[in-house]
Amino acid sequence: MLNQKMCEMGKRRSAIREIFEYANRRSAEIGRENVFDFSLGNPSVPAPKEVNESILRTVNTTDSVALHGYTSAQGDKTCRDRIAASLNRRFDLGVSGDDLYLTCGAAACLTITFNAICNEGDEVIVFAPYFPEYTVFVEGAGAKLVVLKSSEKTGFLPDAELLEKAITPKTKAVLLNSPNNPSGVIYGEETLRAVADVLRRKSAEFGETIYLVSDEPYRELVYDEEIKVPFVTKYYKESIVCYSYSKSLSLPGERIGYILVNPNAQDKSDVYAAVCGAGRKLGFVCAPSLFQRVAADCDGLTGDLNAYKANRDLLYNGMKQSGYECLHPDGAFYLFFKAPGGDSEAFCERAKKYELLLVSGTGFGCPGWVRIAYCVSADTIARALPYLDKLAKEY
Amino acid sequence: MLNQKMCEMGKRRSAIREIFEYANRRSAEIGRENVFDFSLGNPSVPAPKEVNESILRTVNTTDSVALHGYTSAQGDKTCRDRIAASLNRRFDLGVSGDDLYLTCGAAACLTITFNAICNEGDEVIVFAPYFPEYTVFVEGAGAKLVVLKSSEKTGFLPDAELLEKAITPKTKAVLLNSPNNPSGVIYGEETLRAVADVLRRKSAEFGETIYLVSDEPYRELVYDEEIKVPFVTKYYKESIVCYSYSKSLSLPGERIGYILVNPNAQDKSDVYAAVCGAGRKLGFVCAPSLFQRVAADCDGLTGDLNAYKANRDLLYNGMKQSGYECLHPDGAFYLFFKAPGGDSEAFCERAKKYELLLVSGTGFGCPGWVRIAYCVSADTIARALPYLDKLAKEY
Repeated sequence: MLNQKMCEMGKRRSAIREIFEYANRRSAEIGRENVFDFSLGNPSVPAPKEVNESILRTVNTTDSVALHGYTSAQGDKTCRDRIAASLNRRFDLGVSGDDLYLTCGAAACLTITFNAICNEGDEVIVFAPYFPEYTVFVEGAGAKLVVLKSSEKTGFLPDAELLEKAITPKTKAVLLNSPNNPSGVIYGEETLRAVADVLRRKSAEFGETIYLVSDEPYRELVYDEEIKVPFVTKYYKESIVCYSYSKSLSLPGERIGYILVNPNAQDKSDVYAAVCGAGRKLGFVCAPSLFQRVAADCDGLTGDLNAYKANRDLLYNGMKQSGYECLHPDGAFYLFFKAPGGDSEAFCERAKKYELLLVSGTGFGCPGWVRIAYCVSADTIARALPYLDKLAKEY
Repeated sequence: MLNQKMCEMGKRRSAIREIFEYANRRSAEIGRENVFDFSLGNPSVPAPKEVNESILRTVNTTDSVALHGYTSAQGDKTCRDRIAASLNRRFDLGVSGDDLYLTCGAAACLTITFNAICNEGDEVIVFAPYFPEYTVFVEGAGAKLVVLKSSEKTGFLPDAELLEKAITPKTKAVLLNSPNNPSGVIYGEETLRAVADVLRRKSAEFGETIYLVSDEPYRELVYDEEIKVPFVTKYYKESIVCYSYSKSLSLPGERIGYILVNPNAQDKSDVYAAVCGAGRKLGFVCAPSLFQRVAADCDGLTGDLNAYKANRDLLYNGMKQSGYECLHPDGAFYLFFKAPGGDSEAFCERAKKYELLLVSGTGFGCPGWVRIAYCVSADTIARALPYLDKLAKEY
């Protein structure tokens, strides 16, 4: 008998992927331009020009064996040092290349991290709304995902009091994601301080480290000068940052990111070793070597954020005008709104008659809410708004 | 508490990697040209020129969003179809793109495959000598690696009789690796037929499918016209091929390969689904997108095999002259020989005084034997031979 769980997981794609595949079928029937596919978080702006310049320069000037050969499992030392230097310049972090472990993107960061820190039966706490694949990654490491509701009143910020009550001796980590997919909410200093306080207190109470895992693929996707995304390593020592270049550099297919183990963590060298061990176990020999260099060349750059910002403003304002109750998306490229009528499944199904493909919040742990990925062309949004308006009027 | 097993695995690198790191330290001390590093299977010949041509052409002519964006989890359909067409042209396989699942290299192929087919407590049989990381990959999937000795008399071919006796109701798969790392031995038709016969018989006896998993990163690295590497799918229906472009195209750092699920397998669609599910669990969102295209463009090409062949002949003849008892390496780029004195650990340690870095066969399940990776410059071999000769004379 095959592994039945894997079999089921392969057959039942994630809800998001299902809609994405539906979009492809529908596009073949009525033309792609007539389908408003707001399902997938696939960056719509090109990679910054420096990405392709880096690829071309590197390929043209580097010895083939050195360029395409194995790197150290944790990533090429020079690349890690350069990324660390860039992080220190940008965020004043005080990290070194030896605190970084380069990976095949954010999903790999998360599976490696959970396999590194979790033992069978451990619990990982996350706040809804959350990215549904977290369940797959946490359970794949033998742990259990414990979902806490965020308060709608605070605009879906993690609630430290709720967290304090939910932590048990089995809690191995709290997983944060800011800017948040799907809510677009950014967790400020105050939130991080409150979470860190709880974790310190509970770690002491139970005599076991509780880690803070921060999933940050949207770090750079912030559209207002005055809004900053605080770096968790400054608020909590036992923290691990999972970063991906997928969204910032618009290269989700290339699979490149890093795990940053807080150099101030008490058991830093053990955590880093466990990360290396988990990478081996899962079959990640090294991150793709050419893109290790691209990441080192381009860390801190982004695609054209103005395009996303214009999309956000167009969509947010349009939907507000139509009467939708929307969270204001400060970051990432998702807008989260309340389904008129309250039933987000029914709403998303009804939206299909206008060829609007939206994702119900149920999979994100927030039934009654709906996600729109606005990483699409401005034209798509402009043409979709009248249909979103019609749809609102039906309720 | 962190996951202690991961921690240990991260601290205790594989024996091969340990020597590789020693080589780097030693090179820093006495100069790289004075260290004869025969430890790692890192291709020494450049990628065929078509690889970089494909990268440059693709980057210069493809829309950035389409090129660097997510592909389907199983890989871009066009790339899979093109690779399938190439396999059909080269090996008359009758496979389609939908039988292929593109991966981040051979290690990913293996971890995904074992996670797909194995349940907790299952057994996977392998014949020594075998690649030591198999243990990590099989145990990572909750199964147990059962090692059978190959007979030295037959030149380290799998022994079907021994296999038949070793199979239990827990046996989920037999893992073959041909051309073999570390022996360089190629399994011919007769061997595959005998293994397939046993597996069919035992599957029927226990009423459970036993899979044949074929790890084939060295498929194209064969140096004599008359020697063919038979394709396992033609001999056994319940087979899964794990292939990597790392060695053939000299790009082990780029992480690109594929899993081929035999389209004639009885439960083909379930196996394929389980592969997709395991890929999700482990965090492989898709194989690197640019290199999916490179693989499709370059499938069937190789780096300069004549360089490896010349290396093999120089090394094999030289060592035979010095009196070493060597297996003749028909494929891959490793030479496997008997340690003079019988203690391969002691021999490898003694070799270090001549700056010869060799890998003891112990980790490969063959104590008393030694592996030399001859994917180095011809000059390195020419300069090392006198030291190998001196070393032989010490016994």
